[in-house]
Amino acid sequence: MTAQDLTDCHKKIKPYIHKTPVLTSRLLNQISGAELYFKCENFQRMGAFKMRGATHAILQLSDEQKSKGVVTHSSGNFAQALSLAAQSLGIKAYIVMPSNAPQVKKDAVAAYDGQITECPPTHKDREETAKKIQQEKGATFLHPYNDSQVILGQGTAALELLEDYPNIEYLFAPVGGGGLIAGTALAASFFSSNCTVIGGEPFEVDDAYRALQSGRLEINETTNTVADGLKMPLGDITFPIIKKHVSEIIRVDEKEIISAMQLIWERMKIVIEPSCAVPLAALLREKERFKRKKIGLILSGGNVDLGNLPF
Amino acid sequence: MTAQDLTDCHKKIKPYIHKTPVLTSRLLNQISGAELYFKCENFQRMGAFKMRGATHAILQLSDEQKSKGVVTHSSGNFAQALSLAAQSLGIKAYIVMPSNAPQVKKDAVAAYDGQITECPPTHKDREETAKKIQQEKGATFLHPYNDSQVILGQGTAALELLEDYPNIEYLFAPVGGGGLIAGTALAASFFSSNCTVIGGEPFEVDDAYRALQSGRLEINETTNTVADGLKMPLGDITFPIIKKHVSEIIRVDEKEIISAMQLIWERMKIVIEPSCAVPLAALLREKERFKRKKIGLILSGGNVDLGNLPF
Repeated sequence: MTAQDLTDCHKKIKPYIHKTPVLTSRLLNQISGAELYFKCENFQRMGAFKMRGATHAILQLSDEQKSKGVVTHSSGNFAQALSLAAQSLGIKAYIVMPSNAPQVKKDAVAAYDGQITECPPTHKDREETAKKIQQEKGATFLHPYNDSQVILGQGTAALELLEDYPNIEYLFAPVGGGGLIAGTALAASFFSSNCTVIGGEPFEVDDAYRALQSGRLEINETTNTVADGLKMPLGDITFPIIKKHVSEIIRVDEKEIISAMQLIWERMKIVIEPSCAVPLAALLREKERFKRKKIGLILSGGNVDLGNLPF
Repeated sequence: MTAQDLTDCHKKIKPYIHKTPVLTSRLLNQISGAELYFKCENFQRMGAFKMRGATHAILQLSDEQKSKGVVTHSSGNFAQALSLAAQSLGIKAYIVMPSNAPQVKKDAVAAYDGQITECPPTHKDREETAKKIQQEKGATFLHPYNDSQVILGQGTAALELLEDYPNIEYLFAPVGGGGLIAGTALAASFFSSNCTVIGGEPFEVDDAYRALQSGRLEINETTNTVADGLKMPLGDITFPIIKKHVSEIIRVDEKEIISAMQLIWERMKIVIEPSCAVPLAALLREKERFKRKKIGLILSGGNVDLGNLPF
């Protein structure tokens, strides 16, 4: 993947996404001692950065492929993103969701015309059901993060941020499956000469931290984190990019995540989901090292169940 | 009060306030059938429009008065606004708060260097305590809303909105003591030839609605509303302005307020307080009348207790 690929990707998806605002906060600057620039993907269409990657992945398909639709298995933001991106582009999206997925998530997918197929709540069932739809409908399977086109799409958030604020010295992003941090790291490596990329990851699902230590993919035995968007492990496409371009991963505990989330809600008056608070939590955990630095943080999304808040 | 007064006020307070953003939402336009422009005073300094009026009221004082400080009694946003405005201008703010005010409100005032004096939780005690401070310290009493300088300050939110969107046909604002809606109505009468101003008020504290019917100030027997910023009755300075310049008041029930609040949180991803949702609730209650109209809504504030949400 090259700088030209990323620029082309941005040009292609622009008509279908929002250029999200960059917010600053005097109070959070005081608290952190640094100069913070929040790239607000919680204001992105459907409420998360995933809209970027899903749109780009669909746009790369041939007309023949587009006519047969796309399929994925997800109970989270990628299901909504793929449904809305497909709807915007006039094609079909088949979404495999576990039968125990919250009704609010199913409703959101249905509102964007996603065709839901329910399956038993195991990873094997999800994969098999998706494969069946691929065969029956001829639909193209799109992976939520382990896909070069998706990674490029996610990288356009950092691209926009660096275009507006070229002097940013550090870029923080959350690490789940690695699509966002890999795209962010590519954008920084292409369009900035001195921007260090740092990942934030919950201690409870720290496979990426361990993978950077061991040099190979690691698994998470459990996923007991409030940051429900970060439970997936790295993939074999995201990991090499992260290994090459991400300098370090800072792990945070659950209390730090919740307290960073509350800080953003109370001080910045914006709604973000728990996963989205992880980069700020990581920064605050080690704030002494980042004093007076110019720091970009990707606020990844704002889809949260108001009836089930962690504070 | 003249157009020149309002322009002068805006010029004076500009260095101390944020020019807040105006947000739009495709989804809320779809739901309402109208074209909505949200003036986001929840992003104002200290989290509410009250910062505008408090700053203006202090700036109008003589140097002699400023040297002795200001005093008010309030347990809400005006206490915080006066404290922060006074702090910004290097003068003292004495805040009388009822002993049963939530700790979070006391902390907020203290964080802005407001000097808190507690008193028993009756209106009489609040007034007497404030009077005592006036006498002892020579501080100037400032009323949260029944004050021309405060009203002009609050009107600058609508002024900014109409400067950016001169074609707005309706302006909605919440009605409590009347400072914000009076200022909004003055701004519309000065700077727009065809903008109708409409108030939103909870059924549970509908003194303004009744006052417009009867032609005189009315009282609220009870104040059982989730919109805690709208419990105060109109004053003898706000009422005549409202009578002259506000075309109507639409009342809403508690369910409508909570559901409008939830809609803004979920769809726009911003944190607003319950009072702030009342104008949207009023618009949605009668949305058939406003189809395809260009409508400005003043989102008044975002100071909400996250541990005590109504949903």
